[in-house]
Amino acid sequence: MGRKLSTSELLITAGSAQVIDLLCWALLDRGDWVICEEPTFQGATGTMFNHGARFLTVPCDGEGMKVELLPERIERIRAAGEPIKFIYTIVNFHNPLGCDLSLQRRARLLEIARTYGILILEDDPYGWVRFEGEDIPSLFSMDDSGLVVFSSTFSKILAPGTRVAWCAGRDEIIRKMTVLKENVDTCTSVLAQAIVWEYCRLGYLDAFLPRIIDHYRKKRDGMETALKKHLSPDRVSWQKPGGGFFYWLTVPEIPAVQLLEKALEKKVAFVPGNAFYPTGSGGLNNFRMCFTFASTEMTDLGVRYIGEAIREFEQEPGHKKS
Amino acid sequence: MGRKLSTSELLITAGSAQVIDLLCWALLDRGDWVICEEPTFQGATGTMFNHGARFLTVPCDGEGMKVELLPERIERIRAAGEPIKFIYTIVNFHNPLGCDLSLQRRARLLEIARTYGILILEDDPYGWVRFEGEDIPSLFSMDDSGLVVFSSTFSKILAPGTRVAWCAGRDEIIRKMTVLKENVDTCTSVLAQAIVWEYCRLGYLDAFLPRIIDHYRKKRDGMETALKKHLSPDRVSWQKPGGGFFYWLTVPEIPAVQLLEKALEKKVAFVPGNAFYPTGSGGLNNFRMCFTFASTEMTDLGVRYIGEAIREFEQEPGHKKS
Repeated sequence: MGRKLSTSELLITAGSAQVIDLLCWALLDRGDWVICEEPTFQGATGTMFNHGARFLTVPCDGEGMKVELLPERIERIRAAGEPIKFIYTIVNFHNPLGCDLSLQRRARLLEIARTYGILILEDDPYGWVRFEGEDIPSLFSMDDSGLVVFSSTFSKILAPGTRVAWCAGRDEIIRKMTVLKENVDTCTSVLAQAIVWEYCRLGYLDAFLPRIIDHYRKKRDGMETALKKHLSPDRVSWQKPGGGFFYWLTVPEIPAVQLLEKALEKKVAFVPGNAFYPTGSGGLNNFRMCFTFASTEMTDLGVRYIGEAIREFEQEPGHKKS
Repeated sequence: MGRKLSTSELLITAGSAQVIDLLCWALLDRGDWVICEEPTFQGATGTMFNHGARFLTVPCDGEGMKVELLPERIERIRAAGEPIKFIYTIVNFHNPLGCDLSLQRRARLLEIARTYGILILEDDPYGWVRFEGEDIPSLFSMDDSGLVVFSSTFSKILAPGTRVAWCAGRDEIIRKMTVLKENVDTCTSVLAQAIVWEYCRLGYLDAFLPRIIDHYRKKRDGMETALKKHLSPDRVSWQKPGGGFFYWLTVPEIPAVQLLEKALEKKVAFVPGNAFYPTGSGGLNNFRMCFTFASTEMTDLGVRYIGEAIREFEQEPGHKKS
């Protein structure tokens, strides 16, 4: 992460889902506001919602969160006398968008966080899975005000069932989260931690990382090829992700939920975009596809079926022609 | 447990602390009531407190919770129109009391739960660690109304750092807890689960259990011997536990918190009784000692120092002589 830690700034958690749960326990009262990208990972906002969060959402473009929109929105909430507890951002290979938060925007986001004294939860499960280009410095490494809690995990680089992740931040916040962790699961499985530790210590992770990245890069390339082959560029658009797990597709005139029904008939599933909108509106003409699991052959077949589903949908009576 | 389960009635959790967290997520709204023994395990009530629970406490004697007090207390809360969500009970080798809930009281508790339609969380981490006598049937095995959620763990019979526990109950409640588990940690570490599974499958747990019980029995005997040797029976009283981890001591005229200060000067620690009273009153002349960790020699030395601390306390000016 580009920053040396003391042990009091570090907490090992049962996956990075738990980082969100613990930070909510530490900071949130019911009705408090959390700022997040829209769309964003629905598992994260689901946990925050259970803790009573309200969401101040910020739209994204190809460079991630449009941070310039933040000051005015923050001031509006503050003017109403309501507390904003933290900003949740997925900085690298965003879920579901696949994009990075640009370096310039990272710097500006930190500036805004400092101005308003708002903590940032920097969720970075995908940063290690970069197929091309240079790493962008983490917010955590760029910050000297103690306002960033950084979170990452072994789930995407070793195995998801491991349930070993880590978070780093100012010692007061880590201490609070550690105390609250005692109430939710006492500690992260020592068996799991010991195995991960040995795996890293013996150099296996360093050896494995280039292989898993290469493995995922090929799958990404396979999906890119399939998309170009089976989908019409005037019907569907996307941005090729430089890492991570996901493609985010836009189908301007087709409701993704209805497209999903057609795709399911062909045994192909994706996540419709509205699932990633915590305020409940948006993403109606988008869907997310994960490219890391299926074989390249299956990906090709799946995307072909989605292309067929789109064509069938357009041929149906009642569909507005563009 | 004396009852065959379907997989939909079972959830593997990250320790039994998580069972409490998940049941609270599934059932509790802020201000709801939970019925529990007093004293009881402070980790459990701490988690419930974080979820906004209020506690309706029931005193205990040598046979556990005085269940006959329940109907009147339940009716009082119900008369005020306030919801009671579940009854929390540690049935075997109670923490901190060391006693069992008698068979007769188990039957009566179930009857009361059925009458009022209140769920029971039967927390049983210590039931496997029985030194003498016969197992008492679990509430879960005695229940045919689906009102009991049973919880146990590998923490006390394999290793606490394992963080693998299980709970069993009616499928609707298990389904809710499973969905909510996705938000707190997605799933229990598959590495930890796989190791525990292999350990059990290969028969190691069956072979280990008599050894660990024997190991703990000797430690219990060591503490019993030390207590008789170093503490005056007219100053301190206790009930020898038939299993589990704990001794609960009563020191009628000495405030346990002040005794702890004296003991700490001699490098001996225990948990003062008031920590186990969720309503914040009681246990002032009690303390809990765990006998499973220290060697018999260290236990002897520790109890000797506690005896000295008691005598010093009595000799201080201002101490009321009995």
